[in-house]
Amino acid sequence: MNSFDLKSYLCFKREQINEALDSIFANTSSKLVNAMKYSLMAGGKRIRPILCVAAAETVGGKSQDAIRAACALEMIHTYSLIHDDLPAMDNDKIRRGQPTCHVAFDEATAILAGDALLTLAFEVLSSMEFIQEKHVLNWMNVIHTISTAAGYKGMIEGQMQDMAGEGHSLCLEDLENMHALKTGALIETSVAVGAILGKGSLAQIQQLKTYAKNIGLAFQVTDDVLDVEGDPNVIGKDVGSDQARSKSTYPALLGIEQSKQFAKKLVNNALKALDCFDNNAHALRAIACYIVDRKK
Amino acid sequence: MNSFDLKSYLCFKREQINEALDSIFANTSSKLVNAMKYSLMAGGKRIRPILCVAAAETVGGKSQDAIRAACALEMIHTYSLIHDDLPAMDNDKIRRGQPTCHVAFDEATAILAGDALLTLAFEVLSSMEFIQEKHVLNWMNVIHTISTAAGYKGMIEGQMQDMAGEGHSLCLEDLENMHALKTGALIETSVAVGAILGKGSLAQIQQLKTYAKNIGLAFQVTDDVLDVEGDPNVIGKDVGSDQARSKSTYPALLGIEQSKQFAKKLVNNALKALDCFDNNAHALRAIACYIVDRKK
Repeated sequence: MNSFDLKSYLCFKREQINEALDSIFANTSSKLVNAMKYSLMAGGKRIRPILCVAAAETVGGKSQDAIRAACALEMIHTYSLIHDDLPAMDNDKIRRGQPTCHVAFDEATAILAGDALLTLAFEVLSSMEFIQEKHVLNWMNVIHTISTAAGYKGMIEGQMQDMAGEGHSLCLEDLENMHALKTGALIETSVAVGAILGKGSLAQIQQLKTYAKNIGLAFQVTDDVLDVEGDPNVIGKDVGSDQARSKSTYPALLGIEQSKQFAKKLVNNALKALDCFDNNAHALRAIACYIVDRKK
Repeated sequence: MNSFDLKSYLCFKREQINEALDSIFANTSSKLVNAMKYSLMAGGKRIRPILCVAAAETVGGKSQDAIRAACALEMIHTYSLIHDDLPAMDNDKIRRGQPTCHVAFDEATAILAGDALLTLAFEVLSSMEFIQEKHVLNWMNVIHTISTAAGYKGMIEGQMQDMAGEGHSLCLEDLENMHALKTGALIETSVAVGAILGKGSLAQIQQLKTYAKNIGLAFQVTDDVLDVEGDPNVIGKDVGSDQARSKSTYPALLGIEQSKQFAKKLVNNALKALDCFDNNAHALRAIACYIVDRKK
Protein backbone atom coordinates (compact mmCIF):
# COMPACT_ATOMS: atom_id res chain seq x y z
CA MET A 1 0.00 0.00 0.00
CA ASN A 2 2.54 2.57 1.12
CA SER A 3 5.75 2.56 3.06
CA PHE A 4 4.13 3.59 6.35
CA ASP A 5 5.87 1.78 9.22
CA LEU A 6 3.02 0.75 11.51
CA LYS A 7 5.22 -1.09 13.98
CA SER A 8 7.30 2.01 14.73
CA TYR A 9 4.17 4.17 14.81
CA LEU A 10 2.42 1.94 17.34
CA CYS A 11 5.57 1.66 19.42
CA PHE A 12 6.06 5.43 19.49
CA LYS A 13 2.42 6.20 20.30
CA ARG A 14 2.31 3.52 23.00
CA GLU A 15 5.33 5.16 24.60
CA GLN A 16 3.66 8.60 24.46
CA ILE A 17 0.44 7.25 25.96
CA ASN A 18 2.22 5.31 28.69
CA GLU A 19 4.15 8.43 29.68
CA ALA A 20 0.98 10.50 29.75
CA LEU A 21 -0.81 7.86 31.84
CA ASP A 22 2.09 7.61 34.25
CA SER A 23 2.30 11.38 34.71
CA ILE A 24 -1.35 11.53 35.81
CA PHE A 25 -0.62 9.66 39.03
CA ALA A 26 2.59 11.60 39.69
CA ASN A 27 3.94 10.63 43.09
CA THR A 28 0.78 9.30 44.70
CA SER A 29 0.98 5.85 46.21
CA SER A 30 -1.52 3.73 48.14
CA LYS A 31 -2.86 0.20 47.83
CA LEU A 32 -5.69 1.61 45.71
CA VAL A 33 -3.35 3.50 43.37
CA ASN A 34 -1.07 0.46 43.14
CA ALA A 35 -4.01 -1.67 42.01
CA MET A 36 -5.12 0.98 39.49
CA LYS A 37 -1.60 1.23 38.05
CA TYR A 38 -1.11 -2.54 38.12
CA SER A 39 -3.94 -3.01 35.64
CA LEU A 40 -3.48 0.22 33.70
CA MET A 41 0.25 -0.34 33.08
CA ALA A 42 0.02 -4.09 32.41
CA GLY A 43 1.16 -3.83 28.82
CA GLY A 44 -2.14 -3.33 27.03
CA LYS A 45 -2.12 -2.87 23.28
CA ARG A 46 -3.43 0.73 23.71
CA ILE A 47 -5.66 0.29 20.67
CA ARG A 48 -8.32 2.77 21.80
CA PRO A 49 -5.96 5.62 22.74
CA ILE A 50 -3.92 5.07 19.58
CA LEU A 51 -7.10 5.20 17.48
CA CYS A 52 -7.99 8.42 19.28
CA VAL A 53 -4.73 10.25 18.57
CA ALA A 54 -4.54 8.79 15.05
CA ALA A 55 -8.04 10.14 14.34
CA ALA A 56 -6.95 13.59 15.55
CA GLU A 57 -4.00 13.44 13.12
CA THR A 58 -6.21 12.17 10.31
CA VAL A 59 -8.36 15.32 10.39
CA GLY A 60 -5.25 17.53 10.51
CA GLY A 61 -4.92 17.96 14.27
CA LYS A 62 -2.03 17.06 16.54
CA SER A 63 -1.60 13.98 18.66
CA GLN A 64 -1.25 16.25 21.71
CA ASP A 65 -4.76 17.69 21.14
CA ALA A 66 -6.22 14.30 22.01
CA ILE A 67 -3.69 12.69 24.33
CA ARG A 68 -5.60 13.31 27.58
CA ALA A 69 -8.83 12.01 26.08
CA ALA A 70 -6.83 9.02 24.86
CA CYS A 71 -5.68 8.39 28.44
CA ALA A 72 -9.25 8.64 29.73
CA LEU A 73 -10.40 6.09 27.15
CA GLU A 74 -7.70 3.64 28.19
CA MET A 75 -8.72 4.08 31.84
CA ILE A 76 -12.32 3.26 30.97
CA HIS A 77 -11.25 0.26 28.92
CA THR A 78 -9.04 -0.97 31.78
CA TYR A 79 -11.76 -0.54 34.41
CA SER A 80 -14.14 -2.58 32.25
CA LEU A 81 -11.57 -5.38 32.02
CA ILE A 82 -10.98 -5.39 35.80
CA HIS A 83 -14.72 -5.67 36.49
CA ASP A 84 -15.36 -8.21 33.70
CA ASP A 85 -12.61 -10.42 35.15
CA LEU A 86 -14.21 -10.52 38.64
CA PRO A 87 -15.39 -13.87 40.06
CA ALA A 88 -19.02 -12.73 39.81
CA MET A 89 -18.55 -12.07 36.08
CA ASP A 90 -16.09 -13.94 33.82
CA ASN A 91 -13.93 -15.14 36.73
CA ASP A 92 -10.71 -14.81 34.73
CA LYS A 93 -7.43 -15.36 36.56
CA ILE A 94 -5.01 -14.32 33.83
CA ARG A 95 -5.02 -11.21 31.65
CA ARG A 96 -2.18 -10.10 29.38
CA GLY A 97 -0.09 -12.93 30.82
CA GLN A 98 -0.40 -11.62 34.41
CA PRO A 99 -2.71 -12.42 37.32
CA THR A 100 -5.89 -10.35 37.05
CA CYS A 101 -6.38 -7.48 39.48
CA HIS A 102 -8.57 -9.39 41.96
CA VAL A 103 -6.02 -12.23 42.03
CA ALA A 104 -2.99 -9.95 42.45
CA PHE A 105 -4.80 -7.86 45.11
CA ASP A 106 -8.24 -8.92 46.34
CA GLU A 107 -11.80 -8.71 45.11
CA ALA A 108 -12.79 -5.59 47.03
CA THR A 109 -9.67 -3.73 45.91
CA ALA A 110 -10.30 -4.77 42.29
CA ILE A 111 -13.87 -3.46 42.40
CA LEU A 112 -12.69 -0.16 43.85
CA ALA A 113 -9.69 0.15 41.52
CA GLY A 114 -12.11 -0.23 38.60
CA ASP A 115 -14.45 2.37 40.08
CA ALA A 116 -11.53 4.71 40.62
CA LEU A 117 -10.20 4.37 37.06
CA LEU A 118 -13.66 5.13 35.67
CA THR A 119 -13.94 8.18 37.92
CA LEU A 120 -10.40 9.32 37.13
CA ALA A 121 -11.22 9.27 33.42
CA PHE A 122 -13.72 12.07 34.01
CA GLU A 123 -11.36 13.96 36.30
CA VAL A 124 -8.79 13.91 33.50
CA LEU A 125 -11.34 14.99 30.88
CA SER A 126 -12.50 17.97 32.93
CA SER A 127 -9.16 19.32 34.13
CA MET A 128 -9.07 22.97 32.99
CA GLU A 129 -5.33 23.01 33.61
CA PHE A 130 -5.05 21.29 30.22
CA ILE A 131 -8.03 22.75 28.36
CA GLN A 132 -8.07 26.07 26.55
CA GLU A 133 -11.19 28.05 27.37
CA LYS A 134 -12.08 28.46 23.71
CA HIS A 135 -12.19 24.66 23.37
CA VAL A 136 -14.32 23.94 26.42
CA LEU A 137 -17.46 23.17 24.40
CA ASN A 138 -15.52 20.54 22.45
CA TRP A 139 -14.41 18.94 25.70
CA MET A 140 -17.94 18.93 27.06
CA ASN A 141 -18.98 17.16 23.87
CA VAL A 142 -16.16 14.66 24.46
CA ILE A 143 -17.28 13.96 28.04
CA HIS A 144 -20.84 13.43 26.88
CA THR A 145 -19.83 11.20 23.98
CA ILE A 146 -17.62 9.03 26.18
CA SER A 147 -20.03 8.75 29.12
CA THR A 148 -22.89 7.80 26.80
CA ALA A 149 -20.86 5.14 24.98
CA ALA A 150 -19.47 3.67 28.21
CA GLY A 151 -22.78 3.56 30.06
CA TYR A 152 -26.11 1.76 30.23
CA LYS A 153 -26.92 2.42 26.58
CA GLY A 154 -23.49 1.24 25.45
CA MET A 155 -20.61 -0.77 26.87
CA ILE A 156 -22.22 -1.84 30.15
CA GLU A 157 -25.40 -3.04 28.46
CA GLY A 158 -23.11 -5.00 26.10
CA GLN A 159 -21.54 -6.79 29.06
CA MET A 160 -25.04 -7.56 30.44
CA GLN A 161 -26.04 -9.07 27.08
CA ASP A 162 -22.78 -11.00 26.85
CA MET A 163 -23.42 -12.59 30.25
CA ALA A 164 -27.07 -13.26 29.45
CA GLY A 165 -26.02 -14.97 26.22
CA GLU A 166 -23.72 -17.47 27.92
CA GLY A 167 -24.96 -21.05 27.74
CA HIS A 168 -27.33 -20.53 24.84
CA SER A 169 -26.64 -19.67 21.25
CA LEU A 170 -27.35 -16.19 19.91
CA CYS A 171 -28.33 -15.50 16.31
CA LEU A 172 -25.93 -13.52 14.17
CA GLU A 173 -27.90 -10.29 14.62
CA ASP A 174 -27.94 -10.50 18.42
CA LEU A 175 -24.24 -11.37 18.47
CA GLU A 176 -23.42 -8.34 16.31
CA ASN A 177 -25.60 -6.09 18.46
CA MET A 178 -23.94 -7.34 21.63
CA HIS A 179 -20.46 -6.64 20.23
CA ALA A 180 -21.53 -3.25 18.87
CA LEU A 181 -22.39 -2.33 22.47
CA LYS A 182 -19.73 -4.18 24.44
CA THR A 183 -16.66 -3.18 22.43
CA GLY A 184 -17.91 -1.28 19.38
CA ALA A 185 -19.30 1.71 21.24
CA LEU A 186 -16.02 2.61 22.96
CA ILE A 187 -13.92 2.01 19.82
CA GLU A 188 -16.24 4.21 17.75
CA THR A 189 -16.10 6.83 20.48
CA SER A 190 -12.30 6.72 20.62
CA VAL A 191 -12.12 7.65 16.96
CA ALA A 192 -14.93 10.22 17.18
CA VAL A 193 -13.37 11.95 20.18
CA GLY A 194 -9.98 12.15 18.47
CA ALA A 195 -11.65 13.70 15.44
CA ILE A 196 -13.57 16.21 17.58
CA LEU A 197 -10.42 17.31 19.40
CA GLY A 198 -8.45 17.44 16.13
CA LYS A 199 -11.15 19.90 14.91
CA GLY A 200 -12.56 17.63 12.23
CA SER A 201 -15.73 18.57 10.35
CA LEU A 202 -19.00 16.77 11.07
CA ALA A 203 -18.68 14.97 7.73
CA GLN A 204 -15.17 13.80 8.64
CA ILE A 205 -16.32 12.61 12.05
CA GLN A 206 -19.11 10.66 10.35
CA GLN A 207 -16.70 8.91 7.96
CA LEU A 208 -14.40 8.05 10.84
CA LYS A 209 -17.29 6.58 12.80
CA THR A 210 -18.10 4.30 9.87
CA TYR A 211 -14.44 3.30 9.79
CA ALA A 212 -14.52 2.57 13.53
CA LYS A 213 -17.77 0.61 13.45
CA ASN A 214 -16.23 -1.74 10.90
CA ILE A 215 -12.85 -2.20 12.53
CA GLY A 216 -14.53 -2.63 15.91
CA LEU A 217 -16.49 -5.61 14.67
CA ALA A 218 -13.52 -6.91 12.66
CA PHE A 219 -11.49 -6.79 15.86
CA GLN A 220 -14.08 -8.90 17.67
CA VAL A 221 -14.45 -11.47 14.88
CA THR A 222 -10.65 -11.82 14.86
CA ASP A 223 -10.63 -12.21 18.65
CA ASP A 224 -13.12 -15.08 18.30
CA VAL A 225 -10.93 -16.68 15.63
CA LEU A 226 -7.83 -16.32 17.81
CA ASP A 227 -9.69 -17.95 20.69
CA VAL A 228 -10.08 -21.05 18.49
CA GLU A 229 -6.77 -21.23 16.69
CA GLY A 230 -4.43 -18.75 18.39
CA ASP A 231 -1.26 -19.64 20.30
CA PRO A 232 -1.89 -19.20 24.07
CA ASN A 233 1.79 -18.27 24.56
CA VAL A 234 1.40 -15.42 22.10
CA ILE A 235 -2.06 -14.30 23.21
CA GLY A 236 -1.19 -14.32 26.91
CA LYS A 237 -4.41 -16.03 27.98
CA ASP A 238 -6.04 -19.44 27.62
CA VAL A 239 -7.53 -20.33 24.25
CA GLY A 240 -10.79 -22.22 23.90
CA SER A 241 -12.35 -20.27 26.77
CA ASP A 242 -15.30 -19.13 24.64
CA GLN A 243 -16.21 -22.72 23.84
CA ALA A 244 -15.73 -23.82 27.45
CA ARG A 245 -18.26 -21.15 28.47
CA SER A 246 -20.62 -21.98 25.61
CA LYS A 247 -20.32 -18.42 24.34
CA SER A 248 -21.72 -17.57 20.95
CA THR A 249 -18.91 -16.75 18.55
CA TYR A 250 -18.46 -16.04 14.87
CA PRO A 251 -16.52 -19.27 14.26
CA ALA A 252 -19.35 -21.21 15.94
CA LEU A 253 -22.00 -19.50 13.81
CA LEU A 254 -20.13 -19.06 10.50
CA GLY A 255 -17.19 -21.46 10.64
CA ILE A 256 -13.54 -20.39 10.78
CA GLU A 257 -13.00 -19.62 7.10
CA GLN A 258 -16.19 -17.62 6.68
CA SER A 259 -15.37 -15.70 9.85
CA LYS A 260 -12.00 -14.73 8.41
CA GLN A 261 -13.68 -13.65 5.17
CA PHE A 262 -16.20 -11.60 7.14
CA ALA A 263 -13.42 -9.84 9.05
CA LYS A 264 -11.70 -9.02 5.75
CA LYS A 265 -14.90 -7.61 4.30
CA LEU A 266 -15.32 -5.38 7.35
CA VAL A 267 -11.76 -4.10 7.01
CA ASN A 268 -12.43 -3.29 3.36
CA ASN A 269 -15.51 -1.30 4.39
CA ALA A 270 -13.36 0.53 6.93
CA LEU A 271 -10.73 1.38 4.31
CA LYS A 272 -13.41 2.64 1.94
CA ALA A 273 -14.66 5.05 4.62
CA LEU A 274 -11.15 6.59 4.65
CA ASP A 275 -11.13 7.29 0.88
CA CYS A 276 -11.92 10.96 1.47
CA PHE A 277 -8.77 11.44 3.58
CA ASP A 278 -5.24 12.08 2.36
CA ASN A 279 -2.01 10.60 3.66
CA ASN A 280 -2.85 11.76 7.18
CA ALA A 281 -5.02 8.65 7.36
CA HIS A 282 -2.09 6.28 6.75
CA ALA A 283 -2.02 5.19 10.40
CA LEU A 284 -5.75 4.39 10.51
CA ARG A 285 -5.41 2.47 7.21
CA ALA A 286 -2.53 0.41 8.54
CA ILE A 287 -4.33 -0.25 11.83
CA ALA A 288 -7.35 -1.61 9.95
CA CYS A 289 -5.16 -4.14 8.15
CA TYR A 290 -3.26 -5.03 11.32
CA ILE A 291 -6.48 -5.88 13.15
CA VAL A 292 -7.20 -8.95 11.03
CA ASP A 293 -3.55 -9.97 10.59
CA ARG A 294 -2.57 -9.85 14.28
CA LYS A 295 -1.66 -13.02 16.16
CA LYS A 296 -2.76 -11.73 19.58
CA MET B 1 -34.80 29.54 65.76
CA ASN B 2 -37.23 30.52 63.06
CA SER B 3 -40.48 29.21 61.70
CA PHE B 4 -38.93 27.46 58.73
CA ASP B 5 -40.78 24.17 58.13
CA LEU B 6 -37.98 21.70 57.37
CA LYS B 7 -40.26 18.69 57.05
CA SER B 8 -42.27 20.27 54.23
CA TYR B 9 -39.10 21.59 52.60
CA LEU B 10 -37.42 18.17 52.58
CA CYS B 11 -40.60 16.53 51.35
CA PHE B 12 -41.01 19.01 48.51
CA LYS B 13 -37.36 18.83 47.44
CA ARG B 14 -37.35 15.03 47.60
CA GLU B 15 -40.34 15.01 45.29
CA GLN B 16 -38.59 17.37 42.84
CA ILE B 17 -35.43 15.29 42.88
CA ASN B 18 -37.28 12.00 42.47
CA GLU B 19 -39.14 13.39 39.48
CA ALA B 20 -35.92 14.66 37.93
CA LEU B 21 -34.22 11.30 38.50
CA ASP B 22 -37.14 9.41 37.05
CA SER B 23 -37.27 11.60 33.95
CA ILE B 24 -33.64 10.80 33.12
CA PHE B 25 -34.45 7.17 32.34
CA ALA B 26 -37.60 8.09 30.42
CA ASN B 27 -39.02 4.91 28.86
CA THR B 28 -35.91 2.76 28.82
CA SER B 29 -36.22 -0.66 30.37
CA SER B 30 -33.79 -3.58 30.67
CA LYS B 31 -32.53 -5.75 33.51
CA LEU B 32 -29.65 -3.29 33.92
CA VAL B 33 -31.91 -0.24 34.05
CA ASN B 34 -34.26 -2.05 36.44
CA ALA B 35 -31.35 -2.71 38.81
CA MET B 36 -30.16 0.89 38.55
CA LYS B 37 -33.65 2.23 39.28
CA TYR B 38 -34.21 -0.33 42.04
CA SER B 39 -31.39 1.13 44.08
CA LEU B 40 -31.76 4.73 42.96
CA MET B 41 -35.47 4.91 43.75
CA ALA B 42 -35.34 2.89 46.99
CA GLY B 43 -36.44 5.75 49.21
CA GLY B 44 -33.12 7.33 50.05
CA LYS B 45 -33.08 10.43 52.21
CA ARG B 46 -31.67 12.48 49.27
CA ILE B 47 -29.41 14.40 51.65
CA ARG B 48 -26.71 15.15 49.07
CA PRO B 49 -29.01 16.42 46.31
CA ILE B 50 -31.03 18.45 48.81
CA LEU B 51 -27.83 20.02 50.16
CA CYS B 52 -26.87 20.81 46.57
CA VAL B 53 -30.09 22.64 45.67
CA ALA B 54 -30.28 24.29 49.10
CA ALA B 55 -26.74 25.64 48.61
CA ALA B 56 -27.75 27.08 45.23
CA GLU B 57 -30.67 28.83 46.94
CA THR B 58 -28.46 30.03 49.79
CA VAL B 59 -26.24 32.03 47.42
CA GLY B 60 -29.29 33.49 45.67
CA GLY B 61 -29.67 31.00 42.82
CA LYS B 62 -32.61 28.79 41.93
CA SER B 63 -33.13 25.16 42.81
CA GLN B 64 -33.46 24.43 39.08
CA ASP B 65 -29.92 25.72 38.43
CA ALA B 66 -28.54 22.78 40.37
CA ILE B 67 -31.13 20.03 39.98
CA ARG B 68 -29.25 18.01 37.36
CA ALA B 69 -26.03 18.16 39.36
CA ALA B 70 -28.10 17.10 42.38
CA CYS B 71 -29.30 14.05 40.44
CA ALA B 72 -25.74 13.18 39.42
CA LEU B 73 -24.61 13.36 43.07
CA GLU B 74 -27.38 11.01 44.16
CA MET B 75 -26.40 8.57 41.39
CA ILE B 76 -22.81 8.58 42.62
CA HIS B 77 -23.92 8.12 46.22
CA THR B 78 -26.19 5.22 45.20
CA TYR B 79 -23.49 3.50 43.13
CA SER B 80 -21.15 3.68 46.13
CA LEU B 81 -23.79 2.04 48.34
CA ILE B 82 -24.41 -0.74 45.80
CA HIS B 83 -20.70 -1.54 45.59
CA ASP B 84 -20.08 -1.19 49.35
CA ASP B 85 -22.90 -3.68 49.99
CA LEU B 86 -21.34 -6.39 47.75
CA PRO B 87 -20.25 -9.70 49.31
CA ALA B 88 -16.59 -8.83 48.66
CA MET B 89 -17.01 -5.61 50.68
CA ASP B 90 -19.49 -5.14 53.54
CA ASN B 91 -21.73 -8.05 52.47
CA ASP B 92 -24.90 -6.26 53.51
CA LYS B 93 -28.20 -7.91 52.66
CA ILE B 94 -30.57 -5.13 53.69
CA ARG B 95 -30.48 -1.43 52.85
CA ARG B 96 -33.26 1.07 53.51
CA GLY B 97 -35.43 -1.86 54.63
CA GLN B 98 -35.13 -3.63 51.26
CA PRO B 99 -32.86 -6.40 49.93
CA THR B 100 -29.63 -4.89 48.61
CA CYS B 101 -29.11 -4.77 44.84
CA HIS B 102 -26.99 -7.93 44.62
CA VAL B 103 -29.60 -9.84 46.65
CA ALA B 104 -32.57 -8.56 44.65
CA PHE B 105 -30.75 -9.17 41.34
CA ASP B 106 -27.35 -10.86 41.34
CA GLU B 107 -23.77 -9.88 42.04
CA ALA B 108 -22.72 -9.26 38.44
CA THR B 109 -25.78 -7.12 37.79
CA ALA B 110 -25.15 -5.14 40.98
CA ILE B 111 -21.53 -4.43 39.98
CA LEU B 112 -22.66 -3.28 36.53
CA ALA B 113 -25.62 -1.26 37.85
CA GLY B 114 -23.19 0.59 40.11
CA ASP B 115 -20.80 1.19 37.22
CA ALA B 116 -23.67 2.41 35.07
CA LEU B 117 -24.96 4.86 37.70
CA LEU B 118 -21.48 6.32 38.10
CA THR B 119 -21.14 6.69 34.33
CA LEU B 120 -24.64 8.12 33.98
CA ALA B 121 -23.79 10.82 36.50
CA PHE B 122 -21.22 12.21 34.05
CA GLU B 123 -23.57 11.82 31.10
CA VAL B 124 -26.11 13.92 32.98
CA LEU B 125 -23.51 16.53 33.96
CA SER B 126 -22.30 16.99 30.37
CA SER B 127 -25.62 17.08 28.54
CA MET B 128 -25.61 20.36 26.61
CA GLU B 129 -29.36 20.02 26.13
CA PHE B 130 -29.63 21.39 29.66
CA ILE B 131 -26.60 23.68 29.86
CA GLN B 132 -26.48 27.23 28.60
CA GLU B 133 -23.31 27.88 26.62
CA LYS B 134 -22.38 30.85 28.78
CA HIS B 135 -22.35 28.56 31.83
CA VAL B 136 -20.27 25.77 30.32
CA LEU B 137 -17.12 26.67 32.30
CA ASN B 138 -19.11 26.41 35.53
CA TRP B 139 -20.29 22.96 34.53
CA MET B 140 -16.77 21.85 33.66
CA ASN B 141 -15.74 23.01 37.12
CA VAL B 142 -18.63 20.97 38.56
CA ILE B 143 -17.57 17.82 36.69
CA HIS B 144 -14.00 18.22 37.89
CA THR B 145 -15.03 18.91 41.49
CA ILE B 146 -17.31 15.88 41.60
CA SER B 147 -14.94 13.45 39.87
CA THR B 148 -12.10 14.47 42.16
CA ALA B 149 -14.17 14.08 45.33
CA ALA B 150 -15.63 10.74 44.24
CA GLY B 151 -12.34 9.22 43.12
CA TYR B 152 -9.07 7.80 44.39
CA LYS B 153 -8.19 10.93 46.36
CA GLY B 154 -11.64 11.07 47.95
CA MET B 155 -14.58 8.73 48.46
CA ILE B 156 -13.03 5.54 47.06
CA GLU B 157 -9.86 5.93 49.13
CA GLY B 158 -12.16 6.41 52.14
CA GLN B 159 -13.81 3.06 51.47
CA MET B 160 -10.35 1.44 51.16
CA GLN B 161 -9.36 2.90 54.54
CA ASP B 162 -12.66 1.84 56.09
CA MET B 163 -12.09 -1.76 55.00
CA ALA B 164 -8.45 -1.71 56.07
CA GLY B 165 -9.53 -0.43 59.50
CA GLU B 166 -11.89 -3.32 60.17
CA GLY B 167 -10.73 -5.59 62.96
CA HIS B 168 -8.30 -3.15 64.56
CA SER B 169 -8.93 0.09 66.30
CA LEU B 170 -8.12 3.41 64.64
CA CYS B 171 -7.09 6.52 66.54
CA LEU B 172 -9.42 9.52 66.48
CA GLU B 173 -7.37 11.28 63.81
CA ASP B 174 -7.38 8.33 61.42
CA LEU B 175 -11.10 7.80 62.00
CA GLU B 176 -11.83 11.44 61.18
CA ASN B 177 -9.63 11.30 58.10
CA MET B 178 -11.35 8.14 56.88
CA HIS B 179 -14.80 9.75 57.26
CA ALA B 180 -13.62 12.99 55.66
CA LEU B 181 -12.78 10.92 52.58
CA LYS B 182 -15.51 8.28 52.62
CA THR B 183 -18.54 10.51 53.17
CA GLY B 184 -17.20 14.02 53.83
CA ALA B 185 -15.76 14.61 50.37
CA LEU B 186 -19.03 14.01 48.52
CA ILE B 187 -21.10 15.98 51.03
CA GLU B 188 -18.73 18.94 50.82
CA THR B 189 -18.83 18.68 47.04
CA SER B 190 -22.62 18.58 46.99
CA VAL B 191 -22.75 21.93 48.73
CA ALA B 192 -19.87 23.42 46.71
CA VAL B 193 -21.42 22.38 43.41
CA GLY B 194 -24.78 23.86 44.36
CA ALA B 195 -23.06 27.12 45.27
CA ILE B 196 -21.10 27.15 41.99
CA LEU B 197 -24.26 26.61 39.92
CA GLY B 198 -26.17 29.18 41.99
CA LYS B 199 -23.41 31.66 41.02
CA GLY B 200 -22.01 32.11 44.51
CA SER B 201 -18.80 34.06 45.10
CA LEU B 202 -15.59 32.25 45.99
CA ALA B 203 -15.91 33.53 49.56
CA GLN B 204 -19.46 32.16 49.78
CA ILE B 205 -18.38 28.80 48.40
CA GLN B 206 -15.61 28.67 51.01
CA GLN B 207 -18.04 29.36 53.88
CA LEU B 208 -20.39 26.69 52.57
CA LYS B 209 -17.56 24.19 52.37
CA THR B 210 -16.77 24.82 56.05
CA TYR B 211 -20.46 24.28 56.80
CA ALA B 212 -20.43 21.02 54.83
CA LYS B 213 -17.23 19.69 56.39
CA ASN B 214 -18.80 20.06 59.83
CA ILE B 215 -22.21 18.60 59.05
CA GLY B 216 -20.57 15.76 57.10
CA LEU B 217 -18.67 14.65 60.17
CA ALA B 218 -21.64 15.33 62.46
CA PHE B 219 -23.72 13.09 60.22
CA GLN B 220 -21.19 10.29 60.60
CA VAL B 221 -20.86 10.63 64.36
CA THR B 222 -24.66 10.50 64.63
CA ASP B 223 -24.72 7.42 62.38
CA ASP B 224 -22.31 5.70 64.77
CA VAL B 225 -24.48 6.68 67.73
CA LEU B 226 -27.63 5.36 65.98
CA ASP B 227 -25.85 2.09 65.27
CA VAL B 228 -25.49 1.63 69.04
CA GLU B 229 -28.79 2.94 70.35
CA GLY B 230 -31.09 3.38 67.37
CA ASP B 231 -34.30 1.46 66.73
CA PRO B 232 -33.72 -1.07 63.90
CA ASN B 233 -37.36 -0.74 62.83
CA VAL B 234 -36.87 2.99 62.35
CA ILE B 235 -33.38 2.83 60.80
CA GLY B 236 -34.31 0.08 58.34
CA LYS B 237 -31.12 -1.92 58.94
CA ASP B 238 -29.58 -3.95 61.73
CA VAL B 239 -28.07 -2.09 64.66
CA GLY B 240 -24.85 -3.18 66.32
CA SER B 241 -23.28 -4.06 62.95
CA ASP B 242 -20.28 -1.78 63.56
CA GLN B 243 -19.44 -3.58 66.77
CA ALA B 244 -20.00 -6.99 65.17
CA ARG B 245 -17.42 -6.06 62.52
CA SER B 246 -15.05 -4.52 65.07
CA LYS B 247 -15.26 -1.20 63.27
CA SER B 248 -13.79 1.85 64.92
CA THR B 249 -16.56 4.26 65.87
CA TYR B 250 -16.95 7.47 67.82
CA PRO B 251 -18.95 5.81 70.62
CA ALA B 252 -16.19 3.20 70.95
CA LEU B 253 -13.48 5.87 71.13
CA LEU B 254 -15.30 8.65 72.99
CA GLY B 255 -18.29 7.01 74.65
CA ILE B 256 -21.91 7.71 73.72
CA GLU B 257 -22.40 10.97 75.61
CA GLN B 258 -19.18 12.56 74.44
CA SER B 259 -19.98 11.50 70.89
CA LYS B 260 -23.30 13.30 71.10
CA GLN B 261 -21.57 16.40 72.48
CA PHE B 262 -19.02 16.25 69.66
CA ALA B 263 -21.79 16.07 67.05
CA LYS B 264 -23.45 19.10 68.62
CA LYS B 265 -20.19 21.05 68.57
CA LEU B 266 -19.76 20.26 64.89
CA VAL B 267 -23.28 21.45 64.14
CA ASN B 268 -22.55 24.70 65.97
CA ASN B 269 -19.44 25.18 63.84
CA ALA B 270 -21.56 24.58 60.77
CA LEU B 271 -24.15 27.15 61.85
CA LYS B 272 -21.43 29.70 62.53
CA ALA B 273 -20.14 29.30 58.96
CA LEU B 274 -23.60 30.37 57.77
CA ASP B 275 -23.58 33.64 59.76
CA CYS B 276 -22.71 35.66 56.65
CA PHE B 277 -25.87 34.49 54.85
CA ASP B 278 -29.37 35.91 55.15
CA ASN B 279 -32.65 34.02 55.36
CA ASN B 280 -31.81 32.17 52.14
CA ALA B 281 -29.71 29.90 54.37
CA HIS B 282 -32.70 28.81 56.49
CA ALA B 283 -32.83 25.39 54.86
CA LEU B 284 -29.12 24.69 55.42
CA ARG B 285 -29.46 25.85 59.04
CA ALA B 286 -32.41 23.56 59.66
CA ILE B 287 -30.66 20.63 57.97
CA ALA B 288 -27.65 21.04 60.27
CA CYS B 289 -29.89 20.74 63.32
CA TYR B 290 -31.84 17.83 61.83
CA ILE B 291 -28.67 15.83 61.28
CA VAL B 292 -28.00 15.36 65.00
CA ASP B 293 -31.67 15.08 66.02
CA ARG B 294 -32.69 12.44 63.48
CA LYS B 295 -33.70 8.95 64.53
CA LYS B 296 -32.59 7.25 61.29
